[in-house]
Amino acid sequence: MYLCTIEWKDNQIKLIDQTRLPRELKYVYIKEPKAFWQAIKTMKVRGAPALGAAAGLGVYLGIKNSRAKNFAQFKKEMDKVSAYIGSCRPTARNLFWGLERMRRVAYQRRNQPIPVIKQIIFREAQNIIAEDRMACRNIGRYGAELIKNNDTILTICNAGILATIDYGTALGVIYRAHEQKKRIKVFACETRPMLQGARLTSWELQKKGIDVTLICDSMAADLMRQGRIKKVIAGADRIAANGDTANKIGTYSLAVLSRYHKIPFYIAAPASTFDPGIRQGKDIVIEQRNGREVTELFFKQPIAPKEVKVFNPAFDVTPRQLIAAIITEKGVIRPPYKANIKKILIDATFK
Amino acid sequence: MYLCTIEWKDNQIKLIDQTRLPRELKYVYIKEPKAFWQAIKTMKVRGAPALGAAAGLGVYLGIKNSRAKNFAQFKKEMDKVSAYIGSCRPTARNLFWGLERMRRVAYQRRNQPIPVIKQIIFREAQNIIAEDRMACRNIGRYGAELIKNNDTILTICNAGILATIDYGTALGVIYRAHEQKKRIKVFACETRPMLQGARLTSWELQKKGIDVTLICDSMAADLMRQGRIKKVIAGADRIAANGDTANKIGTYSLAVLSRYHKIPFYIAAPASTFDPGIRQGKDIVIEQRNGREVTELFFKQPIAPKEVKVFNPAFDVTPRQLIAAIITEKGVIRPPYKANIKKILIDATFK
Repeated sequence: MYLCTIEWKDNQIKLIDQTRLPRELKYVYIKEPKAFWQAIKTMKVRGAPALGAAAGLGVYLGIKNSRAKNFAQFKKEMDKVSAYIGSCRPTARNLFWGLERMRRVAYQRRNQPIPVIKQIIFREAQNIIAEDRMACRNIGRYGAELIKNNDTILTICNAGILATIDYGTALGVIYRAHEQKKRIKVFACETRPMLQGARLTSWELQKKGIDVTLICDSMAADLMRQGRIKKVIAGADRIAANGDTANKIGTYSLAVLSRYHKIPFYIAAPASTFDPGIRQGKDIVIEQRNGREVTELFFKQPIAPKEVKVFNPAFDVTPRQLIAAIITEKGVIRPPYKANIKKILIDATFK
Repeated sequence: MYLCTIEWKDNQIKLIDQTRLPRELKYVYIKEPKAFWQAIKTMKVRGAPALGAAAGLGVYLGIKNSRAKNFAQFKKEMDKVSAYIGSCRPTARNLFWGLERMRRVAYQRRNQPIPVIKQIIFREAQNIIAEDRMACRNIGRYGAELIKNNDTILTICNAGILATIDYGTALGVIYRAHEQKKRIKVFACETRPMLQGARLTSWELQKKGIDVTLICDSMAADLMRQGRIKKVIAGADRIAANGDTANKIGTYSLAVLSRYHKIPFYIAAPASTFDPGIRQGKDIVIEQRNGREVTELFFKQPIAPKEVKVFNPAFDVTPRQLIAAIITEKGVIRPPYKANIKKILIDATFK
């Protein structure tokens, strides 16, 4: 079964409603920016690379019916919808990268008639999608070189098909190793509070025929102590210029536990997740989410006293010292990160 | 409000049904061993020290209507009910300690008439309860000496009132520090899969006026990195002769994270949790529980694909090297554990 997380179809955005998984695979169609904002906020669509594509399609959705008479008017409308989409989730770098990319392409063609600019924007959104599909396959290709036959790999959250267009970053590495007929086992951290590991990762790995075992986040250390984890691979939401990496809350915990147990800890992410404007991890803005994600299961069943205080950051930052390598579509980046990120990602782009 | 986790009342066992917390404080009355076995298995009552008391009351419940004509017959019945209760949960030392204690007291008085032996058994069950109340207060007293004003303490699972008769071990330390007017804050790990931290610890700390913040288990590392945790205190289910400690799954993870962040990690437990017959942690039997605890919330709402494999150990083992001290009712035990456990707990008992 081919799964496509987000695409443009029948003049609207079509996406898998991830809040309904694993119970049912259901698509939603979105016609206007407000519903799209809600879909991102409630994580119907999530995952940093998928949010890059969402930014492109979202901008197009917001301007496709524009009646602007000139570029100044058009730009105003476009800036408004971009700011609106960008207000949704502050940490995922790819969302802003996508918005910025749309803005730039429109600006470059500012002398063209508005209908042409609209077409250029549409094509750019489609380019982001096509590039993500390619980038993930290349991440898979580079990453699979690190995977040995009979490896057991631990992952957190969902950095798979459902976090990208159709292949995955951390899970892309696993899919590629599987395609190479390597025998691998995956342990998936359930990933509280929103349970993306339980709901999404174990679901898509099963669909793809990968041997997956679900664990609670707190069980990872015990498996490591038993020698049952050979590698840890996580995705990323934003990577600073020095390699410090923001990812789903709990990632830092796994990185420390990996260091203690001498297990290599890898990040897998496309170039679009790197933020050269952020020097180091402590400058990354961490999204704080509603405490009810913790105290109530999916805002329904209470599991804690109502008035209890809650700490609910969506992400944490893993310092570069704990990361064995960052797997990108342009190659595997190893320390020293600051120099090698520049060499492999930034300089290469301008060659 | 005075809370009593388990007691003998109106010729039956009265206990707080912890599966209904925090939604409602409801007591259940239990008249026969089968219902009691179920109550322990489904964790209506749980917590190692409370299970010590449960063993005493459970044995009495099982033999109080015995029609045995002689001690041999009576002993057979008692062994049967003991084995039945003991089959419920393999890891909690106190359960077996309680059963053994009942067996011994009956055997010592084997020449008495059966009705007298029944009375002795009843009194021994009440002794266990009285001793637990005292032991927890002494654990609190010794432990509170380690707590400074303005400390922020992290705990996991529930080692409080609801895990003992009415005071707690790890939370007993916190209650005592609070009584001493020390300003303290507590972060409670929610403790997947059964959420004892969310449902029980945050509930009882709130009831006692302690400043508590609930977190997902995966968030502890991030708080530590931020310097927001000064001490970690956990309870114990079984402690080997060398100090290795089995406790709720996730405890080992916190111990490793504490070591990395240079935060002292303490265990608080009564002498009845120590198992001198077990040399080291790897000899402790770890209870594997139903995977549906992970894949379904309270066996109701599915949160993962139905057929997914699950790893669900109820406990993990923290090696003694990661434990700064073990707080007991007889004093604070520090390394070297093997010698000091013997000195403080075992030799002291026979002086």
